[in-house]
Amino acid sequence: MNYTFEQLHSFTLRLLHKIGCPEDQAKTAADVLLSADLRGVDSHGVARLSGYVRLWEKGRINLTPDIKIVHETPSTAVIDGDAGLGLIVAPYAMEVAMAKAEKVGTGWVSVKNSNHYGIAGYHAMMALEKDMIGLSLTNASPLVSPTFSKERLLGTNPISVAIPANQEPPFVADMATTTAANGKLEILQRKGEDAPEGWIQDKSGKPTQSPTGVKDGGALLPLGGDRIHGSHKGYALGSIVDIFSAVLSGANYGPWVPPFVAFLDPDPNPVGEGIGHFFGAMRVDAFRPADEFKSHMDNWIKRFRESETTPGNEKVLIPGDPERILEAERMENGIPLLEPVVQDLKELSERFGVEF
Amino acid sequence: MNYTFEQLHSFTLRLLHKIGCPEDQAKTAADVLLSADLRGVDSHGVARLSGYVRLWEKGRINLTPDIKIVHETPSTAVIDGDAGLGLIVAPYAMEVAMAKAEKVGTGWVSVKNSNHYGIAGYHAMMALEKDMIGLSLTNASPLVSPTFSKERLLGTNPISVAIPANQEPPFVADMATTTAANGKLEILQRKGEDAPEGWIQDKSGKPTQSPTGVKDGGALLPLGGDRIHGSHKGYALGSIVDIFSAVLSGANYGPWVPPFVAFLDPDPNPVGEGIGHFFGAMRVDAFRPADEFKSHMDNWIKRFRESETTPGNEKVLIPGDPERILEAERMENGIPLLEPVVQDLKELSERFGVEF
Repeated sequence: MNYTFEQLHSFTLRLLHKIGCPEDQAKTAADVLLSADLRGVDSHGVARLSGYVRLWEKGRINLTPDIKIVHETPSTAVIDGDAGLGLIVAPYAMEVAMAKAEKVGTGWVSVKNSNHYGIAGYHAMMALEKDMIGLSLTNASPLVSPTFSKERLLGTNPISVAIPANQEPPFVADMATTTAANGKLEILQRKGEDAPEGWIQDKSGKPTQSPTGVKDGGALLPLGGDRIHGSHKGYALGSIVDIFSAVLSGANYGPWVPPFVAFLDPDPNPVGEGIGHFFGAMRVDAFRPADEFKSHMDNWIKRFRESETTPGNEKVLIPGDPERILEAERMENGIPLLEPVVQDLKELSERFGVEF
Repeated sequence: MNYTFEQLHSFTLRLLHKIGCPEDQAKTAADVLLSADLRGVDSHGVARLSGYVRLWEKGRINLTPDIKIVHETPSTAVIDGDAGLGLIVAPYAMEVAMAKAEKVGTGWVSVKNSNHYGIAGYHAMMALEKDMIGLSLTNASPLVSPTFSKERLLGTNPISVAIPANQEPPFVADMATTTAANGKLEILQRKGEDAPEGWIQDKSGKPTQSPTGVKDGGALLPLGGDRIHGSHKGYALGSIVDIFSAVLSGANYGPWVPPFVAFLDPDPNPVGEGIGHFFGAMRVDAFRPADEFKSHMDNWIKRFRESETTPGNEKVLIPGDPERILEAERMENGIPLLEPVVQDLKELSERFGVEF
């Protein structure tokens, strides 16, 4: 079943406003959430709306947060999200990073006391129209085991970097620091197919290809999969994301990050407040004239895109290409939602008296 | 054959000084080069000394460079390395980044017109004693194919991040953005052993396990190895390193990066000057009090190190642990050099009349 962007955006906005979110903030949240649906990161879009609502019902999300800077220097800030929706806290923090970049060349903001912020790429891409490079990181509920560990100590901790070009579309990397994101496992589960080697381990720490391996107490594996294929690098990257997002800001880190699902309680002995994010903005012209930079980016992108392909592949892609293609297609033809997601949205519609 | 740190350091310093490097700069270069030997990155240590000398003989390295800032803002700078040794240009640039961080919280420096800078980790770790987080990136001669490409368009483009702790040793990630670094292939070649799947492809772009696959015209693969194991993420990371190091600064990028080996000439139509690096320094107390941050880092490190292990593994390691252990061991027992490396050094010794 396909739904239009406008339909889903409007429903998300009205629902969040109905339960107490100020209208401008509800709009921001809907923008962020829907960008995931448009860009094909279905697990981070409207499919999560009922999850956010359940967290609000548990008192874990504050819909009228007093988001504020609690520490700063000319190029840095720490922001307290006051338990607000990450969907709202994150764009606020990115604006602060960009305002600092305007003044001193770059801005770097670490955030505590927040919640799940949707797709990382949305926030990084905010920098593009200002001719800035954007960086967006977040930690997340622990689902990933470090190399040699059988415990879940890290989230899928994504890294997004957005870099402007001129004639070419921008370079937009947006990736979990695991071999595969959890959403891909969910797809395999629905199809009843095995997972490739190197994606997950079972709860005893042994490699498994069962698509329910993580549900059954196992863990996702860091990018690389195992030691011989460089999983210690994925582990290091996920750790850097965790430390920048949470140890710098005073949020919870590692296994203490509160779970996204409302039926699991946060650790009774937290090491910080909420979950953490980290944002960066670098003015391109803090390094060289923006038009010079962007025309070299065009050249970079063209050279890579036109490179000779390996057998069986038609094209070398630039980070951001697949999502951009999908976004155009879904704006045109609508966003396909799975039946359980539609049911969820209808239930929210009835419960809160907001037309779907 | 083992050689003491002092012996190799002194030889490197005297040799570089003899051929024209000012003494203080020769000492810096020796510090950087030897830190690779101590930390077990043997391919980036004294084994490369004769390679640097050959580049100098070809007129591609300037031993008396006028390294200078060519553009800056309060938190950024672009540095022209004047074709100097990267071993000298990089610490200079990192000092600039740290000086900016002292003033405005963070400092970010992109470098053009440089050469190979040794191990990435050395430069990132310079930040530690100032209670800063250090970042060090560099591009390098193209040896790596993007996902779906059969051309070599990227270097092994490493990322190093160093983060201070209090009681615990620092967190130091230092990694190529490929599945395996080239040095590991050289070891397999000497042993006549096959490479694991996912490390390399042959010149037609098909996966190969031949340890000479890269020498024979193939390429190293980005971290992840293939698309299903996330190679598009390793490709994105290597690309970000390339763009920050070279498109921001005005150095050569992608396939235009000049080769390290002196027998291959640089592209006659360069897109920039020399190779590029990127450095960052963030004062920890630009975010929260340094002692607070460092005690949470201790907690982070302990929790991860003490985590339960997978079957057959004794310990979960923290990034930097293996190198630190090796460094202590090699300071005590000396640095093992392979026979061809010793021959190289002896030849340099005779040719330039510098006692080995």
